[in-house]
Amino acid sequence: MILTDSLLTLFLKTRSDTEEICAPLQTEDYVVQPIVDVSPPKWHLGHTTWFFEEFILSKYVPGYERFHPEYAFVFNSYYESVGKRVVRTNRGNLSRPTVSEIYEYRDHVTTHLQTFLEENDEEHIQELVEVGIHHEKQHQELLLTDIKYILGNNPLLPKYNDTFTEHRVPDVPTRYIGIEEGVYEIGHQGTDFCYDNELGRHKVFLSEFEICNTLVSNKEYLDFIKDGGYKNSLLWHAEAWDWLQNENVESPLYWHKIDGVFQQYTLRGLSDIHPDTPVTHISYYEAFAFAQWRGERLPTEFEWEVAQSAFNWGTRWEWTESAYLPYPNYTKAPGALGEYNGKFMVNQKVLRGGSVATPQNHTRPTYRNFFHPHLRWQFTGFRLVKCK
Amino acid sequence: MILTDSLLTLFLKTRSDTEEICAPLQTEDYVVQPIVDVSPPKWHLGHTTWFFEEFILSKYVPGYERFHPEYAFVFNSYYESVGKRVVRTNRGNLSRPTVSEIYEYRDHVTTHLQTFLEENDEEHIQELVEVGIHHEKQHQELLLTDIKYILGNNPLLPKYNDTFTEHRVPDVPTRYIGIEEGVYEIGHQGTDFCYDNELGRHKVFLSEFEICNTLVSNKEYLDFIKDGGYKNSLLWHAEAWDWLQNENVESPLYWHKIDGVFQQYTLRGLSDIHPDTPVTHISYYEAFAFAQWRGERLPTEFEWEVAQSAFNWGTRWEWTESAYLPYPNYTKAPGALGEYNGKFMVNQKVLRGGSVATPQNHTRPTYRNFFHPHLRWQFTGFRLVKCK
Amino acid sequence: MILTDSLLTLFLKTRSDTEEICAPLQTEDYVVQPIVDVSPPKWHLGHTTWFFEEFILSKYVPGYERFHPEYAFVFNSYYESVGKRVVRTNRGNLSRPTVSEIYEYRDHVTTHLQTFLEENDEEHIQELVEVGIHHEKQHQELLLTDIKYILGNNPLLPKYNDTFTEHRVPDVPTRYIGIEEGVYEIGHQGTDFCYDNELGRHKVFLSEFEICNTLVSNKEYLDFIKDGGYKNSLLWHAEAWDWLQNENVESPLYWHKIDGVFQQYTLRGLSDIHPDTPVTHISYYEAFAFAQWRGERLPTEFEWEVAQSAFNWGTRWEWTESAYLPYPNYTKAPGALGEYNGKFMVNQKVLRGGSVATPQNHTRPTYRNFFHPHLRWQFTGFRLVKCK
Amino acid sequence: MILTDSLLTLFLKTRSDTEEICAPLQTEDYVVQPIVDVSPPKWHLGHTTWFFEEFILSKYVPGYERFHPEYAFVFNSYYESVGKRVVRTNRGNLSRPTVSEIYEYRDHVTTHLQTFLEENDEEHIQELVEVGIHHEKQHQELLLTDIKYILGNNPLLPKYNDTFTEHRVPDVPTRYIGIEEGVYEIGHQGTDFCYDNELGRHKVFLSEFEICNTLVSNKEYLDFIKDGGYKNSLLWHAEAWDWLQNENVESPLYWHKIDGVFQQYTLRGLSDIHPDTPVTHISYYEAFAFAQWRGERLPTEFEWEVAQSAFNWGTRWEWTESAYLPYPNYTKAPGALGEYNGKFMVNQKVLRGGSVATPQNHTRPTYRNFFHPHLRWQFTGFRLVKCK
Repeated sequence: MILTDSLLTLFLKTRSDTEEICAPLQTEDYVVQPIVDVSPPKWHLGHTTWFFEEFILSKYVPGYERFHPEYAFVFNSYYESVGKRVVRTNRGNLSRPTVSEIYEYRDHVTTHLQTFLEENDEEHIQELVEVGIHHEKQHQELLLTDIKYILGNNPLLPKYNDTFTEHRVPDVPTRYIGIEEGVYEIGHQGTDFCYDNELGRHKVFLSEFEICNTLVSNKEYLDFIKDGGYKNSLLWHAEAWDWLQNENVESPLYWHKIDGVFQQYTLRGLSDIHPDTPVTHISYYEAFAFAQWRGERLPTEFEWEVAQSAFNWGTRWEWTESAYLPYPNYTKAPGALGEYNGKFMVNQKVLRGGSVATPQNHTRPTYRNFFHPHLRWQFTGFRLVKCK
Repeated sequence: MILTDSLLTLFLKTRSDTEEICAPLQTEDYVVQPIVDVSPPKWHLGHTTWFFEEFILSKYVPGYERFHPEYAFVFNSYYESVGKRVVRTNRGNLSRPTVSEIYEYRDHVTTHLQTFLEENDEEHIQELVEVGIHHEKQHQELLLTDIKYILGNNPLLPKYNDTFTEHRVPDVPTRYIGIEEGVYEIGHQGTDFCYDNELGRHKVFLSEFEICNTLVSNKEYLDFIKDGGYKNSLLWHAEAWDWLQNENVESPLYWHKIDGVFQQYTLRGLSDIHPDTPVTHISYYEAFAFAQWRGERLPTEFEWEVAQSAFNWGTRWEWTESAYLPYPNYTKAPGALGEYNGKFMVNQKVLRGGSVATPQNHTRPTYRNFFHPHLRWQFTGFRLVKCK
Repeated sequence: MILTDSLLTLFLKTRSDTEEICAPLQTEDYVVQPIVDVSPPKWHLGHTTWFFEEFILSKYVPGYERFHPEYAFVFNSYYESVGKRVVRTNRGNLSRPTVSEIYEYRDHVTTHLQTFLEENDEEHIQELVEVGIHHEKQHQELLLTDIKYILGNNPLLPKYNDTFTEHRVPDVPTRYIGIEEGVYEIGHQGTDFCYDNELGRHKVFLSEFEICNTLVSNKEYLDFIKDGGYKNSLLWHAEAWDWLQNENVESPLYWHKIDGVFQQYTLRGLSDIHPDTPVTHISYYEAFAFAQWRGERLPTEFEWEVAQSAFNWGTRWEWTESAYLPYPNYTKAPGALGEYNGKFMVNQKVLRGGSVATPQNHTRPTYRNFFHPHLRWQFTGFRLVKCK
Repeated sequence: MILTDSLLTLFLKTRSDTEEICAPLQTEDYVVQPIVDVSPPKWHLGHTTWFFEEFILSKYVPGYERFHPEYAFVFNSYYESVGKRVVRTNRGNLSRPTVSEIYEYRDHVTTHLQTFLEENDEEHIQELVEVGIHHEKQHQELLLTDIKYILGNNPLLPKYNDTFTEHRVPDVPTRYIGIEEGVYEIGHQGTDFCYDNELGRHKVFLSEFEICNTLVSNKEYLDFIKDGGYKNSLLWHAEAWDWLQNENVESPLYWHKIDGVFQQYTLRGLSDIHPDTPVTHISYYEAFAFAQWRGERLPTEFEWEVAQSAFNWGTRWEWTESAYLPYPNYTKAPGALGEYNGKFMVNQKVLRGGSVATPQNHTRPTYRNFFHPHLRWQFTGFRLVKCK
């Protein structure tokens, strides 16, 4: 458990970090929701605030008055057990509360929570604050990827700023790392923060395998495209193939073929595609098809966790072959917080690692990210494992 | 034809009127598009500006440089013959150009057109400017009704301002006006501005009829609701009945049943329903069902035009029984401007009159407004004609 | 009013005619519903039977027992006021009752109605029987067009039979017939059967016009296609253009481009396109676009009715420019029979004439057929009127 | 490898078994497709036949002429690499080929394959025949469940026959079986037939667990319903909850509440719900929610496989917690047959066991069935594992 002082510092820093991410935005950028998976930035600002108000201030601060009686409705996300919520597809239809009202709301809640924390050091409260901080850090990453989608799908292709570097070339030569057959332990241990889905440390048996120390690069991916990878149905899952046809997918998200050459939209604007940088903004479907084409496969999340200390990671979320499922004897937290992870454990794939958009210290070897297999707006990549 | 001086004055006034309508808005209100029929206010601001740039400045001003090369794409509406356009359902996904950029764009175009008009008095140009002015006035009304929708569908129910009066009680007792059988002339005459759909003045034969001098009131409409009007399938068109079931329609748009009593959202916020005010925000389907219930009927647009001088009108667009069709030997203007009206002449109903949102001098006895029969976000009402 | 004897004869002949239309079918052909507008033939057989059972036998024959208690549910169509009904899109999901059970049902009802008519000559009953006969005749035409759709959309392109002739070349040279300006009477008169939508004979004023004595031919329509008619957005209504893009429409329904040459599926199987035969299976949208391309227009239903004695008609339903609306002071019949026509009087276009699929004596100069403007599975064509 | 004689016998028996399943059907029952997951029985009859024609006769029998050139198009299912196919949702729109034509097709292919097998004993051919036999056995089960859906969703609720027994009460008392922690081997071994998805025998580590020897019963499931299981969002996955709301699910498929008491449609018609029979026709979502409610969980497919010899199984397919994923180093067969299993390995859950509809000898402890988590038309049930 983090001591109160540093918890308070971390809380305040997290709150201001979120706002810093939004600093380059125009007011209008806070409002729109071009696809259902993306939320308007102002919603993220409000939702992360509501979380502290709903689960701490309104429960533990005697006489606390909510900033606005309707905000619980507007900024609830999926917490079915905490009253009605705004349907996700409608978030982009709400012009009010305004951005500046939401910043006031943030200040209000931050201040009240600060006061409360300065006078209260119960462990239970501190645990809730810690959950709230990590919840907000998760939304920091989503904020950035949602902002990229909002700007990158505008016909004017405006840039976010001039400094954000998406581009990371590996500094080691590519090679395969062998891991021996054996029984390994999986899952979080120790007293540091983790989500409930990482708990339930348990053993798995792994056959020996060889895993690549680098992610698949743009250059390799371009070879796949040139070789007709998007045209060969045998490489794809049946529902991936349908998705491909319906959405006319022919390259990673944000790639634009201009005068016959691919370029990509980045947070700095349109730019060349660097051949040695890991490919990103691809779906699990595409990662899988690429692996089929190469005669290799994706690692399971267990293989990844066991092998991860032998390679560098953290610049791209890595699709694994594993479905997002509970660890043995996983149990949900009681009440609304129990809705946090468990209710999503169906039809999603696990991603491991982290990305250029992940907040500092917000990832670890046991962290289990998850998305539906067709989604591409996160900074997603993949590494390969050899087939025997 | 209006003389240049007054045309210029009218042009400048129209441009500033549009902006005045937007004065009470927050930046965020300019951006959203909660349903496909509503456009974001910033789109209206840009589109009305693009119209002058596309059809006048870029064609007739030598060396004119467009304010931005992509705006023609972003702000085109339905003019298929003038290049690609933003799909209507995507308008609310565009955070850029920003509101202030669009105001700059407006200034740019207004200034250039002003300069051009001060040096140019060709009749053809003046006609185009006049079309552009009337086009912008039409959008002024849409701006206001779209703003009402944007605010009125927000769970916070914010008001537009404290002064806008939707409420108009008729100052005469209700009675039926008899019109004799005969051949009447329909359509615009004279040299004042009108749209092409009003031209082709022609004769129609009308049987005698009796038309009400006032619109159906909230009180009367409440009686219809109380009598089970929304539950009786025999009163409704087949597709109206399907619409009713799918959309769970049980009252006019913007009516909220609170503690068992109907209230309505207005541009001043939530308020009581005034029994003597004409009912508004109802679809053609509802107007028709009410008339069936009363054993009366809606007037045709011809009956309305012939009788209109005998009653007051202009506070509510009035649904008629007439489909929106070309007058005999109607011909579209050549080129893109010909797309203005003719291409909508199917599956829509004619509305006559005007509303509290209609700009001054922007209506006349021959004006033909038109909407799909299920739409309700305009200030729509209706009057009855007796069945023989 | 038809005398009982001949009414009975007509009733029996109508019942057997319906079954004769189905004689070439395989059992499987009776079952499917490839699009929502088409009904399975077995449904037509049951529905026309249910009509007599519901509105006559069960009401007027003391002690009559329905053939099956659930059939009223299965075979009701749109009569909302007569209990629940099978949603139209589900009709093709019902394998039971079987075809032979439905033929038994037909025999049962035919026999009971015959017995009843032999003992009963009340005028009210005879009127209902007459409505039922005409209702069944309408379904005879739908049966044939639905069968054509079912077979013509099967990849095996099976023929219906070897004898049905869709092909009718006009036997007179094409010319335009002038009609003088004046007030004309429109609508049914006399005591012969007609639908309620033809009643309310009334006057209309028509300007002078010139109408073509023949329908637009395949040859003319091919010229339109070759000239890029389907590619020129300016010729089309806005919603027609959307329909075109969504459905990839590039020619009339049932046309197949095989080795660069159009052929058409007919009830006799695939065949060449005869240049002088009227074009058929086109939507109102296509008729309108063709007229735009030719610089002419479609007649209104009133022009058609006034001019029709001067030309031959009856081989193709003719789209008119008129929306399907009630005649002045039209009133629906009370109760469920009132649902027959009036509830469809919105968003549809009037067609006049008749087709190769129309039963003998089932059309007349005042007959108002109606369909949505995008529909093409009826034998639809059109004639032109000159624009002044 | 099965010797040729018994392979031929098995082939012929399989072909006739399929037809026996269809014996109680009316011709109409062969044609319809009420939901996308269900195929018309005549399609199953044709598709299993096409499989032999496509992969054996047309490839290995010199001069073999296909029964009909278009059948490969009509009866292909998902084999993208073998030419165009009928979109799955359109199968129910095809009245041709007729049922009797398809039976002729079956005879033709059966006879040709019999002749070929009598003269040919190459192992490769025999392997393909064996795949075809197992493919047809899989479709036998689907035939029966699809027939149940077709009849059970007809408002007349016709029965299939009087003899088919869905109902199986366990003959042992319920108890939990303990399995010790350890490394276990999973997957098929030996030379008997199995699918590629069972191969790649490999080790897994299992913690100790206790698994129930009987399936959850109707009585237990009724308790869940009575306790508000379908109303408590906390028990459900997020997308399960959406599914529940959209589809108005309140009980297992085929349950009808009649006068306040649940009854169920079975292949023998409507019947009482037997309290001790395992609950069936439930989705994975429902199985999961029930387990949450009970504070237990579903077994993984590995736990199931390891424990299965200690309990009886085979009357209901059992949902497991496992996602349908490739075993380590799984490789697809080359070419079209490789499309058989691997392409479905995403977004589905594994079911183990077998059901009353499974053909004899068509299941085994390593058999991996799979369906999307919302599907209910198979005979699906589940057993529980205790949470620690």
